[in-house]
Amino acid sequence: MKVTRASKISRIFFMTQKLLSNPGKIISLKYFVDNLGAAKSTISEDLTEIKQNLHESGEGTLQTVSGKNGGIKFIPLQSQETIQANLDQLEAKLKEAHRILPGGYLYMGDIISNPALIKNAAKMFAGYFSPKGPDVVLTVETKGILLAGYTADYLGVPLAIARRNSRVTEGSVLTINYISGSTNMIQTMSLSTRAIEKNSKVLIIDDFMKRGGTLKGLKNLTYEFESNVVGLGVLLEQGTQKEKLVSEHLSLGILENINEEQGQVNLTMRRGDFLKNNFY
Amino acid sequence: MKVTRASKISRIFFMTQKLLSNPGKIISLKYFVDNLGAAKSTISEDLTEIKQNLHESGEGTLQTVSGKNGGIKFIPLQSQETIQANLDQLEAKLKEAHRILPGGYLYMGDIISNPALIKNAAKMFAGYFSPKGPDVVLTVETKGILLAGYTADYLGVPLAIARRNSRVTEGSVLTINYISGSTNMIQTMSLSTRAIEKNSKVLIIDDFMKRGGTLKGLKNLTYEFESNVVGLGVLLEQGTQKEKLVSEHLSLGILENINEEQGQVNLTMRRGDFLKNNFY
Repeated sequence: MKVTRASKISRIFFMTQKLLSNPGKIISLKYFVDNLGAAKSTISEDLTEIKQNLHESGEGTLQTVSGKNGGIKFIPLQSQETIQANLDQLEAKLKEAHRILPGGYLYMGDIISNPALIKNAAKMFAGYFSPKGPDVVLTVETKGILLAGYTADYLGVPLAIARRNSRVTEGSVLTINYISGSTNMIQTMSLSTRAIEKNSKVLIIDDFMKRGGTLKGLKNLTYEFESNVVGLGVLLEQGTQKEKLVSEHLSLGILENINEEQGQVNLTMRRGDFLKNNFY
Repeated sequence: MKVTRASKISRIFFMTQKLLSNPGKIISLKYFVDNLGAAKSTISEDLTEIKQNLHESGEGTLQTVSGKNGGIKFIPLQSQETIQANLDQLEAKLKEAHRILPGGYLYMGDIISNPALIKNAAKMFAGYFSPKGPDVVLTVETKGILLAGYTADYLGVPLAIARRNSRVTEGSVLTINYISGSTNMIQTMSLSTRAIEKNSKVLIIDDFMKRGGTLKGLKNLTYEFESNVVGLGVLLEQGTQKEKLVSEHLSLGILENINEEQGQVNLTMRRGDFLKNNFY
């Protein structure tokens, strides 16, 4: 779009739309100056106003990046109030009696594939781990993909998906074995050697954790890529598993137990103040 | 957020942010009236301005839904110009010589897990299939999940993910066998019986199609759920496969051939005018 001397409303709309659609991506002031036909000082004033409105909405902030490739970027860090509302919504969903399966398992298929719910969880992870500056988000197929994908999107970084079985279309892969913490069986996962560059800061995201065998596998996979783990996030953690294989993870909720007869799901959720960001 | 008599800039910001973050979801005028402390007529005027700006940006439109649960919703239907630019970007990415694998395979792992690229492709599918009014988007693990997830998000509907192997945490599943068109092997896929309601309008999305065996399987799976297929979309289709098992699909690009020695990927992409929307 090339607008000559756009009105203030058009400028605010254009910048809001551009920033919010490209979270984590640096957009230069020059881009806005060129596209909106306004002075740099005008654009700066507009951005201040957008930032104020963003804070009031509780949906994020703008960060200024200086230097040659500098500019402004949107980070979807939510306010404590917004985070708490999203956690409450997630808790209510998880507690629905219909999702108790025979054997005391919890059906989460509709949650992990519901974009609206998963986006909120991803925003919590992106906000919480954003200060660590991850370069890539890593997950293993299948159920964590959407959550990890949105987290990567909100951080403005790529996603890497490890496979349980490697395919010819992955090209060269690095394969590791790991022990499933709950079954004690040896498992395999593979990742394309192109998926993570050496010396990357890796954020690991998954949907569910029992003892943490898979997360530990993803950590080891990261080390094989000569990279560092800067964070581990899981949607839900099983609390009854005593000896965990990882300790530094962040889970949004802990599944204490499931009472199949009474149709009760007992959960402890993180509180919003734990996940809040300090710029509000 | 509860704002008393918000300024026009704050109103435009708040509504833009709310609508763009919840594509496909109907938001009532009352919601905006209550949150912004403005008269209904003012909100309506603001929405007209937002709609104009959206059209100018080429990033979508607002649709008014009448009736008791009516309101306004954002549909990320892009302009022909925006679609063409996104198709050109995708074509350039797909043609990069480094993705040619031994045996003439194409590495697409970085594309299918790049949120920025996949969001653009998902917007094309959402825009193209939106008039069919899908209730749910269906894919099969693994590589199409992010693309299908964003498409579902942009349409404001849930995603259903069929599994190659069913797990205990899926609850009751419906399993079908299908013939892989390229290998002629019998394959299996399963979907939780909760994932698709009877009489749903199903949009099938996948990343890659050879002869179409998987897409045909997803169609049959849809019929087993007593539902209808309203569209099939794939990112890339292999053109050299002659006898296709489906015919009504939309692919964004056709892979004609790969010249391993010369490092050339020959593609035919859809043109933007085919995918355009007629409200611009």
